[in-house]
Amino acid sequence: MDEVKIIEIKQSVFAANDKQAEQLRAELKEKGIFLLNLMSSPGSGKTTTLTRTIEALKGELKIGVMEADIDSDVDAKRIAATGAKAIQLHTGGMCHLDAGMTRQGLEALETADVELAILENVGNLVCPAEFDTGASRNAMILSVPEGEDKPLKYPLMFSVCDVVLINKIDVMPYFDFDLQKCKEYIHMRNPKAKIIPICAKTGEGIEQWADWLRAEVAAWKNEA
Amino acid sequence: MDEVKIIEIKQSVFAANDKQAEQLRAELKEKGIFLLNLMSSPGSGKTTTLTRTIEALKGELKIGVMEADIDSDVDAKRIAATGAKAIQLHTGGMCHLDAGMTRQGLEALETADVELAILENVGNLVCPAEFDTGASRNAMILSVPEGEDKPLKYPLMFSVCDVVLINKIDVMPYFDFDLQKCKEYIHMRNPKAKIIPICAKTGEGIEQWADWLRAEVAAWKNEA
Repeated sequence: MDEVKIIEIKQSVFAANDKQAEQLRAELKEKGIFLLNLMSSPGSGKTTTLTRTIEALKGELKIGVMEADIDSDVDAKRIAATGAKAIQLHTGGMCHLDAGMTRQGLEALETADVELAILENVGNLVCPAEFDTGASRNAMILSVPEGEDKPLKYPLMFSVCDVVLINKIDVMPYFDFDLQKCKEYIHMRNPKAKIIPICAKTGEGIEQWADWLRAEVAAWKNEA
Repeated sequence: MDEVKIIEIKQSVFAANDKQAEQLRAELKEKGIFLLNLMSSPGSGKTTTLTRTIEALKGELKIGVMEADIDSDVDAKRIAATGAKAIQLHTGGMCHLDAGMTRQGLEALETADVELAILENVGNLVCPAEFDTGASRNAMILSVPEGEDKPLKYPLMFSVCDVVLINKIDVMPYFDFDLQKCKEYIHMRNPKAKIIPICAKTGEGIEQWADWLRAEVAAWKNEA
């Protein structure tokens, strides 16, 4: 597999993360770069979902991916293998990315030719929800084995996301997972959240997710 | 189901968490209370594992459980249904428990008649690993659907745990999970970690886990 760039990022020392996030979002808009922030628990399938997403959109959008992790570069290598531009961000033990760290990542990614930048955030349902990265849209994955009660326990994460992908629906028969209840719980936290069941492993639902992304990129281009 | 006590805990303002943790550990030793800190990702099966653990040890040890979550009381209700003493700790959005927060929890639990106190930490593979709670032993659960590569990505968590339970082994045939590789990765981070494959749902491996706990409680009693 290809060698990938590994960047050690430092937590931004500025307290005003929200302000930095707004500024980054405005700059990205100016440059025509749609930034997607993808969050989830560890092991819910972010990287596999991304490889499917890249496959689905490859001919249409120039994609660059930042893989954030505390350690290792296994995810960036998997993304690089798809042919997409990919770098690994090491957070130095940090449990989330803020806008300053995201900016460092985007600079390292070299986004001159990127239209869709994707940040795979640190696997964590708590801290990443508290820090605006400057993303155009926030997405999260909840996987079937985690259980349908997660919106009850991690309310903020579900409330900040524009879309929730319910992944690993292929193993639904082997788990006590109530999809209808899960949808209700998500909408309790966030009535506007779009919910898309997928199986990143088999590709099921990926076309619907790619359609959602296409529509959001188009809508964002027309936003003030 | 029984009503359970819900405690809103505040993050300790003292920076010297390690010192507080040592002090709490010494006090608990004095009182004869073994404190187990149980950590994992969201949805890896902490609560189901605990209900099985209580079943296995019910006649031998007086058990009290603190269920930490950002929101909801579903877990404490499940524990209370086993007949064990249980309280719910709400962390007010915090992603982990420190020693001061654990002390508040123990006070609320009322431990006069407790021999084995169990803290179910917030579902998170990052932050809880950074804060010593004052526990006698640290345990974690990694579930099969999360993937065997987690020790590569979340090194600190695996290095601070005395025991790693590999849960949901019943669904191994439906996931690409390499148990041998997983064990190697865990031992890379922590050569001394005990590894016990279990299925909390069916009860497989629980007796081995209960044996480990029995032996650790006995060893701890003889520690200085």
